[in-house]
Amino acid sequence: MTTDLARLSINQETVKQWSLEELATGCTASGISHVGLWRAPVQEYGVERAAKLMRESGLSVTSLCRGGFLTATDPKLRTAALDDNRKAIDEAATLGTDTLVLVSGGLPSGERDLTAARERIADALAVLAPYAAERGVRLAIEPLHPMFASDRCVVSTLGQALDLAERFPASQVGVVVDTYHIWWDDQAPAQIARAGASGRIHSFQVADWITPLPAGVLLGRGQLGDGSIDMRSFREQVDATGFTGPIEVEIFNEDLWARPGAELLAEVAARFTEHVL
Amino acid sequence: MTTDLARLSINQETVKQWSLEELATGCTASGISHVGLWRAPVQEYGVERAAKLMRESGLSVTSLCRGGFLTATDPKLRTAALDDNRKAIDEAATLGTDTLVLVSGGLPSGERDLTAARERIADALAVLAPYAAERGVRLAIEPLHPMFASDRCVVSTLGQALDLAERFPASQVGVVVDTYHIWWDDQAPAQIARAGASGRIHSFQVADWITPLPAGVLLGRGQLGDGSIDMRSFREQVDATGFTGPIEVEIFNEDLWARPGAELLAEVAARFTEHVL
Repeated sequence: MTTDLARLSINQETVKQWSLEELATGCTASGISHVGLWRAPVQEYGVERAAKLMRESGLSVTSLCRGGFLTATDPKLRTAALDDNRKAIDEAATLGTDTLVLVSGGLPSGERDLTAARERIADALAVLAPYAAERGVRLAIEPLHPMFASDRCVVSTLGQALDLAERFPASQVGVVVDTYHIWWDDQAPAQIARAGASGRIHSFQVADWITPLPAGVLLGRGQLGDGSIDMRSFREQVDATGFTGPIEVEIFNEDLWARPGAELLAEVAARFTEHVL
Repeated sequence: MTTDLARLSINQETVKQWSLEELATGCTASGISHVGLWRAPVQEYGVERAAKLMRESGLSVTSLCRGGFLTATDPKLRTAALDDNRKAIDEAATLGTDTLVLVSGGLPSGERDLTAARERIADALAVLAPYAAERGVRLAIEPLHPMFASDRCVVSTLGQALDLAERFPASQVGVVVDTYHIWWDDQAPAQIARAGASGRIHSFQVADWITPLPAGVLLGRGQLGDGSIDMRSFREQVDATGFTGPIEVEIFNEDLWARPGAELLAEVAARFTEHVL
């Protein structure tokens, strides 16, 4: 099978076993020209230094994960969250990516009001979106699977993400379409069309859904083709809106991390061609 | 605090450590007059015998769990599923409950088409609903949390459940409103109103949402008040539709099962009064 890697972006957490330098070398050697990065390993390596490494390797950075966690009620925590998000926006700008992914945050301890938490996200976006726009960075609200609603992200559907994003210009706030989080939702096709029509698909990510879920459920994502998601159908829906950007593969899975990085990357590339394109 | 137990129904899986006889004795001793039963322990005890025990204990059976698993593509498996559901309907009739809860089924191995799977459920309901109606039993489609979409139930939202139920008379097919499965959904309030307006709330169940989820996620439900769900708000929404029936507490949690049944039942009753009523 021939592989077409022009649209493939490798999120660095997919090959977490690799250092940033190994990622750059590995992608270049495989003909992959896009990567998605995470703040912690980039900070550890040095943001300017990471930007230089990507530039010199000919790699474009399709997104930086992650800002967000904007649901705190405590004023000090809210201020700290806004400061940290400004820092994340600065880092995105330094890395040369136009997209900062937001994981919006769960319910603060003892809170049960999802609607109020979602409103606090909107309040924070009103502060952060202009700051980001001045630096050439778009904020991308990622709806997370409803199983993360209490502890990571009260934005559980693409519809909810768009309800928030549409309060702002599309050039400032959009959404992430991630198959893993929305595949179960019969409203997803209509919401993908809605997002595309207003130019708000700022990132498109893919991972497959497999069971049983591990304890804590965070690391339960499946290799492309191993699970229940019709990823080609989602890619076709996203493409049908006019989206032509890179498609980021973002899989968190300890079994995959236990394998040699180069072997895993080759498998991801083959599966991407077979199941997504 | 005084406890008002008139509307409390104890699903037998909540006190799984108890035998059916212990359940009957324990509920009677606590002033609880409703229970929800499960097929396997009832079959083990004997269906007629269980019906007699409930009758003689003055306990009403608010629902039987569960029929369903109606998504198979293999003709032999489909026939077997329909036969088993007819048996479940017969058992419900024998137990004197008017409600059979349906867990509709996940994706068959290798299948990725959720829409087609949901249509197969509708096809099966067309066969089963009249059979149930002749025996005084209503079918109640339970939307399960989207984290169960692949392996247990492709019906993930109350909206989807109603889309299926509304193809049939409300006297034959309705839905289960279970806080655990739908709490994250901003469409839930509108869908509860829709379900109530057409007389389709055939069962109302409560459990709380806690994290971290255990491996396999099935046994991760929380004691009332321990988690993120505003259960009183849901009870008020359901009541606002005119629903006056029993409210079933259905919690699957190994930590709770490790405790003495009577102690757990007393805690459930107190929490029910504090967090639901």
